[in-house]
Amino acid sequence: MQSFEQLSQQFSAHFNQKHFPPEPASLYEPNEYFLKAGGKRIRPVLCLMGNELFDEIKPDAWEMATAIELFHNFTLIHDDIMDNAPLRRGIETVPKKYGANTALLAGDVMLIAAYELMNNVSLTVIRRVQNLFNATAKEVCEGQQLDMDFEKLESVAFDQYLRMIELKTSVLLAASLKMGAILGGAGERNQNLLYEFGRKLGLAFQVQDDYLDAFGDPDKFGKQVGGDIVANKKTFLLIHAWETASASQKKELNKLIQDSSGDKVKKLIRVFKDCKADEWALELKNKFLDEAFGHLEDIAVLSKRKQPLKDLATYLIKRDH
Amino acid sequence: MQSFEQLSQQFSAHFNQKHFPPEPASLYEPNEYFLKAGGKRIRPVLCLMGNELFDEIKPDAWEMATAIELFHNFTLIHDDIMDNAPLRRGIETVPKKYGANTALLAGDVMLIAAYELMNNVSLTVIRRVQNLFNATAKEVCEGQQLDMDFEKLESVAFDQYLRMIELKTSVLLAASLKMGAILGGAGERNQNLLYEFGRKLGLAFQVQDDYLDAFGDPDKFGKQVGGDIVANKKTFLLIHAWETASASQKKELNKLIQDSSGDKVKKLIRVFKDCKADEWALELKNKFLDEAFGHLEDIAVLSKRKQPLKDLATYLIKRDH
Repeated sequence: MQSFEQLSQQFSAHFNQKHFPPEPASLYEPNEYFLKAGGKRIRPVLCLMGNELFDEIKPDAWEMATAIELFHNFTLIHDDIMDNAPLRRGIETVPKKYGANTALLAGDVMLIAAYELMNNVSLTVIRRVQNLFNATAKEVCEGQQLDMDFEKLESVAFDQYLRMIELKTSVLLAASLKMGAILGGAGERNQNLLYEFGRKLGLAFQVQDDYLDAFGDPDKFGKQVGGDIVANKKTFLLIHAWETASASQKKELNKLIQDSSGDKVKKLIRVFKDCKADEWALELKNKFLDEAFGHLEDIAVLSKRKQPLKDLATYLIKRDH
Repeated sequence: MQSFEQLSQQFSAHFNQKHFPPEPASLYEPNEYFLKAGGKRIRPVLCLMGNELFDEIKPDAWEMATAIELFHNFTLIHDDIMDNAPLRRGIETVPKKYGANTALLAGDVMLIAAYELMNNVSLTVIRRVQNLFNATAKEVCEGQQLDMDFEKLESVAFDQYLRMIELKTSVLLAASLKMGAILGGAGERNQNLLYEFGRKLGLAFQVQDDYLDAFGDPDKFGKQVGGDIVANKKTFLLIHAWETASASQKKELNKLIQDSSGDKVKKLIRVFKDCKADEWALELKNKFLDEAFGHLEDIAVLSKRKQPLKDLATYLIKRDH
């Protein structure tokens, strides 16, 4: 059993190569530029870990892991067009550097390249992994569309937001693990438990991310505190505040959302605290994390095989009890 | 053996259904809107014809034909973003009606839906058809990128333009036929001959299209004569004129390209005629058409099985001898 760090290093070594032909450079160079900039490679390593939970890592898992990482990067390139984002991974985004049209096409070929790799997977499993991949890929697009739809709404219900986060973030983490499990020969029950582990882990991670935006230690968080607040993003905190606020707090929220003065962040954090959105978010995160660990517990393999996944979950999500 | 018209009707009946789930409507409704607007469905029918050239049409061929048509529509939606096109098939384009961001995502899920269908193809052929599909899909993206690159260049050489047209248009026609041939159980030599038939047919068609823009009968052509000239598009005619013009004709060409007065079209057509670009284009078209028929001739099946493809080629491309 190998740790996330060990597999991450191996995957990076495997992935660190040219993925596209040299010509036409105007199309392929942007993709190589973006892939070279790195990233945490969490999803492909989850695929490898999902495989190794049940059996030694198969050559197919490397193909799938690489396909998953290419797919993830395709979504980032297209998201950066839609968000008109200038920076990612500390460098200019593909649309900013090469123009939106080239970024659009570069993303398209990145997705096709992912399918090229998947086409090498053994015939005994090709249909199952591609079915899961396709269903997940559509869900990720649905999540992105819902996210854009929500931007135009005045308020979003908790259930709607949860579903959007699930589609946009969780299902790919879950599916990466499950694809690994399929390749590792897991039975269907174990595959699905691992999927649920990933899904809940993704939700816990997003709750934490939303929480840290307002309540994180700026030195540790690595992002500017209140970025979501300044951008008027709907987050778990804002949605909970909205749903539990008194009449006067609701009035205050409305005023603050339209506000763009310097102390907007401070004032909104105050309302979050008044509505106990901070405590609620920590409980919600712990609930998802507990559920994730419960699913992992139920998987019918020796407990010690689960240790790397437990360690990863604990590393990604700080428990606050 | 069925004619193009017969198979086209059958395919339309097969294709005329919802291809996406109802929700989220903000993502899927744009795709249903666009698919409902029709189109000539040439590519999927070529796949069916490629199959029927060798054997009765297999259920797999219907899956592949549908996947090909979805792929083609994906390219059109993304092209319309890049070209900022307001109209296609007599209706507003998806980006114009729903916005570029939704069109981007709608195109993405359209491509994924094509792969979903392909994943149903028999395991004995799935790898071969997907390999061809993936290689072709990348080439189509390359062609679109080259087309955008060429817009920024002052002049383009004949060979470069030919390669761009081949990638952007011909390879998908050729691959549609070949995928059908694979599903129909054709041997490799026959598959490749059919591919070459499609490739040359696509080139002949594009030469004809460029020719008709300047020299077509406006009543029969169905488009405004000189549209390419007004848009300063590089075409077979302009490129040939450029490559054969005398010094004074080159000067005239340069002046006319920068011109935007009312008689620009008339004057440029005059230069094309002076350079004999019209005669040359007709010869080039006939050359490609002859080569296409030569490849079809060489395919080792009974001649009468080839009749529907011959009829289609003759219908698509008018011979001028």
